[in-house]
Amino acid sequence: MTAPETTPPSPERLDELYEQCSNWGRWGDDDELGALNLLTAERRATAVASVRTGRSVSLANDLPKVPSAENPFPAHHHMLASGDALDSNGIPGYEATRDYVGTDVHGLGVTHIDALCHMFAKGHTYNGRTAETVKSTGATANTIMAAAGGIVGRGVLLDVARALGDGPLPGNTVVTPDQLDATCEAQGVEVGEGDLLMVCTGRDARRTEQRGRFDPITDGMAGLGAECLPWLHEKGIALLGGDGISDPMPGVGTPEWPFPIHQIGITRIGLMLIDNMNLEELSEACADAGTWDVLLAVAPLRVPGGTGCPVNPIAVL
Amino acid sequence: MTAPETTPPSPERLDELYEQCSNWGRWGDDDELGALNLLTAERRATAVASVRTGRSVSLANDLPKVPSAENPFPAHHHMLASGDALDSNGIPGYEATRDYVGTDVHGLGVTHIDALCHMFAKGHTYNGRTAETVKSTGATANTIMAAAGGIVGRGVLLDVARALGDGPLPGNTVVTPDQLDATCEAQGVEVGEGDLLMVCTGRDARRTEQRGRFDPITDGMAGLGAECLPWLHEKGIALLGGDGISDPMPGVGTPEWPFPIHQIGITRIGLMLIDNMNLEELSEACADAGTWDVLLAVAPLRVPGGTGCPVNPIAVL
Amino acid sequence: MTAPETTPPSPERLDELYEQCSNWGRWGDDDELGALNLLTAERRATAVASVRTGRSVSLANDLPKVPSAENPFPAHHHMLASGDALDSNGIPGYEATRDYVGTDVHGLGVTHIDALCHMFAKGHTYNGRTAETVKSTGATANTIMAAAGGIVGRGVLLDVARALGDGPLPGNTVVTPDQLDATCEAQGVEVGEGDLLMVCTGRDARRTEQRGRFDPITDGMAGLGAECLPWLHEKGIALLGGDGISDPMPGVGTPEWPFPIHQIGITRIGLMLIDNMNLEELSEACADAGTWDVLLAVAPLRVPGGTGCPVNPIAVL
Amino acid sequence: MTAPETTPPSPERLDELYEQCSNWGRWGDDDELGALNLLTAERRATAVASVRTGRSVSLANDLPKVPSAENPFPAHHHMLASGDALDSNGIPGYEATRDYVGTDVHGLGVTHIDALCHMFAKGHTYNGRTAETVKSTGATANTIMAAAGGIVGRGVLLDVARALGDGPLPGNTVVTPDQLDATCEAQGVEVGEGDLLMVCTGRDARRTEQRGRFDPITDGMAGLGAECLPWLHEKGIALLGGDGISDPMPGVGTPEWPFPIHQIGITRIGLMLIDNMNLEELSEACADAGTWDVLLAVAPLRVPGGTGCPVNPIAVL
Repeated sequence: MTAPETTPPSPERLDELYEQCSNWGRWGDDDELGALNLLTAERRATAVASVRTGRSVSLANDLPKVPSAENPFPAHHHMLASGDALDSNGIPGYEATRDYVGTDVHGLGVTHIDALCHMFAKGHTYNGRTAETVKSTGATANTIMAAAGGIVGRGVLLDVARALGDGPLPGNTVVTPDQLDATCEAQGVEVGEGDLLMVCTGRDARRTEQRGRFDPITDGMAGLGAECLPWLHEKGIALLGGDGISDPMPGVGTPEWPFPIHQIGITRIGLMLIDNMNLEELSEACADAGTWDVLLAVAPLRVPGGTGCPVNPIAVL
Repeated sequence: MTAPETTPPSPERLDELYEQCSNWGRWGDDDELGALNLLTAERRATAVASVRTGRSVSLANDLPKVPSAENPFPAHHHMLASGDALDSNGIPGYEATRDYVGTDVHGLGVTHIDALCHMFAKGHTYNGRTAETVKSTGATANTIMAAAGGIVGRGVLLDVARALGDGPLPGNTVVTPDQLDATCEAQGVEVGEGDLLMVCTGRDARRTEQRGRFDPITDGMAGLGAECLPWLHEKGIALLGGDGISDPMPGVGTPEWPFPIHQIGITRIGLMLIDNMNLEELSEACADAGTWDVLLAVAPLRVPGGTGCPVNPIAVL
Repeated sequence: MTAPETTPPSPERLDELYEQCSNWGRWGDDDELGALNLLTAERRATAVASVRTGRSVSLANDLPKVPSAENPFPAHHHMLASGDALDSNGIPGYEATRDYVGTDVHGLGVTHIDALCHMFAKGHTYNGRTAETVKSTGATANTIMAAAGGIVGRGVLLDVARALGDGPLPGNTVVTPDQLDATCEAQGVEVGEGDLLMVCTGRDARRTEQRGRFDPITDGMAGLGAECLPWLHEKGIALLGGDGISDPMPGVGTPEWPFPIHQIGITRIGLMLIDNMNLEELSEACADAGTWDVLLAVAPLRVPGGTGCPVNPIAVL
Repeated sequence: MTAPETTPPSPERLDELYEQCSNWGRWGDDDELGALNLLTAERRATAVASVRTGRSVSLANDLPKVPSAENPFPAHHHMLASGDALDSNGIPGYEATRDYVGTDVHGLGVTHIDALCHMFAKGHTYNGRTAETVKSTGATANTIMAAAGGIVGRGVLLDVARALGDGPLPGNTVVTPDQLDATCEAQGVEVGEGDLLMVCTGRDARRTEQRGRFDPITDGMAGLGAECLPWLHEKGIALLGGDGISDPMPGVGTPEWPFPIHQIGITRIGLMLIDNMNLEELSEACADAGTWDVLLAVAPLRVPGGTGCPVNPIAVL
């Protein structure tokens, strides 16, 4: 299968998509959960059918403690007491080590989930909330706390790079809805309402090919084109993740719409995104098993006011 | 059922327990996974039978951003860009908010998992590793990365407070193995090899009773007595969590053994602990359903060198 | 000398003081330096006459690493490499230790300087700048960078507690302009234009009396009454510091004006404040020497966008 | 004047310098102040004679908030409350902004002072203290607290780049003792016991020439050769600072002695260093004035257990 030439959509088309792909009001004006409403308890119970062997796989990259082009703002992992201070707790007989961990939540390196207050378009985010709802003291609506109950459901991996057959998608390749459908067909898997979708474009393989030196800005990252928005909306995808940031990087849109999946997917569909997943081991495991659906568990930290948080999504095959 | 009087075990008895309750070498000298080895893929696959309605419940407390007696070292949640700086990313048209989150991992407030390098006894931890393996630059063995693949399995909640019938356990009540057995019987649940055990003592209910002002040191927290160690070891518990810190607080042991569950459970059995869980909602849900086993998903962050990390365990009923 | 009874000023009087005590426009509409303009190079050169013996004294408290009522949000001092990892720099032969230090800038514990963008009154701060000038990404005007060139000049210590003769000022004692004058007279010192004024009320002595347990909110801290504003303004004080926060704590004003020295001094006079100084050693030294003026050096960190920073003011007698 | 060819000293010569240039025991076995003992109160009092016009100049770079080759681990400057949350303090009527500032102390970007516990050679630092004195919970000896009383004295700037006449010193030029003497002569200034020495090599000019892109590792930084150690020791320099790190970078020594000024200067002479100063404005001002001595004020933060801290040294001409 050859990737068709893609023409970036016009600003007018993006305005159309903005109008068309919206869940505002669908679950009430107070709703902060967005598309995750589609992951009902019933669907969660059914999702366990995707567990076959019980193998579990981490879908996160290591928290980046050293700066790189992928993560110029390194995470803090600070030991508070190492083995040289086992007795520093002040409790006689008690020997312990302790540490501190902290990180910028977003960006192109940390595996993290975007809450619905992370993105705005035309000054508004999901369910019509304005920029004033996100204060310097924390967000007051659409925070990550909406997903604090956990995101456990049927996960489907679409390894577009593998299905298209030409290896990791180069540069900022734009993935089309047709390619998503073709990947479903090639993999023999269907995507349905309430599913947690993961799209693999080969970013991690590219990093390996480049001996660890991968620059998301100059090398580019593949992602879904804006025309995938109706596909995501109509299918009823409950959560979208990828090994990049779901949008092609650098953006291929117009100045007003550099990252349509973020700008319309989050703000209008109410679609939380997981950026910078590591999908290599999962893809190998799925290819070996010949099945592409898993039980996926994402457990966001309970950060009141948070615009997202680092996560380690776990797939159980 | 009345709580029997308990006599703290002697130092000699604790030395005996230290000798007796050990998994060192059981899974090889290189093993860093400890009791989690008992949660096999097969058991993970079987665990999905515990999912009935698909309801999911968070078992964590909110990350404590304001200091309290439970958490004197508050977490950092710092906005990097709130709604007043939507355009601060330097990408025209892109409107986003961003934040930073960081926290001390351990202590009496944050819901967190203890890696096997967190505790030492007699200068050693699981599989005989010495204090020198935990450097100020990070731990080099027995880190939380051992569990990075996720901990998904059959979780069993034992609500001892509810089963004993007298409400939240006061002070630093010592829970005995008989009480664990009695709770199993009262709840009609069995605990088996590879299970993820959670013990509820009523700490959160005590906080509520005390209008939010709860001091783990002066008020005390109930926990498992040292004599529960053989019970945990023989049953083959793969992970232990609690609404306190699993050990009674303040410790009721001898000066050498203030916290036997931490000191022997972690270092000898290789039992990772989850401290400061919030088990209230789960206990209500289990009581309503009349079932006390769940699918439990714990997804530790990938922190290389980490002695643990904050977690939000998710139970699916 | 007996402290006269003081009546809190009315809201109307505070509105008057707000109108009266203003330097807006005095040094141009672009000015961000405020009262520090009065510390001219010439006055700085003259200030060295205050150096007599060359003894230097630190006027800061230790950075508070452990929480207390005075500083509930402890500073971070994290070792990145201690003696157990001397070789962690990756340079053969190079043996080094490293650390990280961080702190909330403001509050009642850290010795810090307030930049002019720290406070607002009626939505404006010095020179008429609005709240919009302080973004979540950093302040864009009136930042601490205005003082990055250093604050070196004639410092004058007024130890009101000592001069009034009754020991540390209790509770939230309101210091009056008459008492400032009486202290000047008792100490035989004059305060003039461009001076850096420090007022000692005995807070640190109170902490010692209370064996280290001092709660600024329940115990209270003495400070200057609102009627000192014209005194400060007319004298041409360039910088004000104190062992408390210069304002009485809790505030004795009206709901609109809880902390007039902060609210009018900073925003209208353009007076940077140094809060939580430790003036005990300096006061002893001055009393011994019989002189109360010193060369004072304050060296704010260069924090672009900062609303202040921790400082260690140094007095040379 | 032409720079002579320099031959890196042999390991044997460095061992000799290590033996020769030592102040261990000179001020008692308990001493933690090192060469700063030479900055006596008397000399501090005399130093004010260096103040002529009263102009003050900052000698620090801005705290680096954005990563660069000079500082890959950016400082944290996080707003806690910007103008969008003026009322977030919970005190009616009180309008304030707040922030957090934190940074790695050492490295090639932040202007900072090295405490005597920062460096070790052969496992020991100043006055014979071992690596065990620096714990993961903080240093217990030779900390920055030794200098908490402030460092105020006669500062002398030697602008070697200017005096040698060929502009910024390229690469990792090794400055010789003869060049230091020649610079003193060219500038008409003498360096004496207890002086605070600053050496300018033109690093900041190089950054400007390279339009802000300067990489200390690939571009190199000039510094003092190992043969300057006796010069520093015999002159009785109390503190050494530079626009680089005082040592040439990359090191020109042998594998055992990559950075002799750090390794012998700090550990044996007890010489605290200030790295990454910005000396451009001061050099211009001194050249204009025709005088090269100033009153220098360095005010280290009071960080108990600290191996150093960020500083903003202030020169008064």
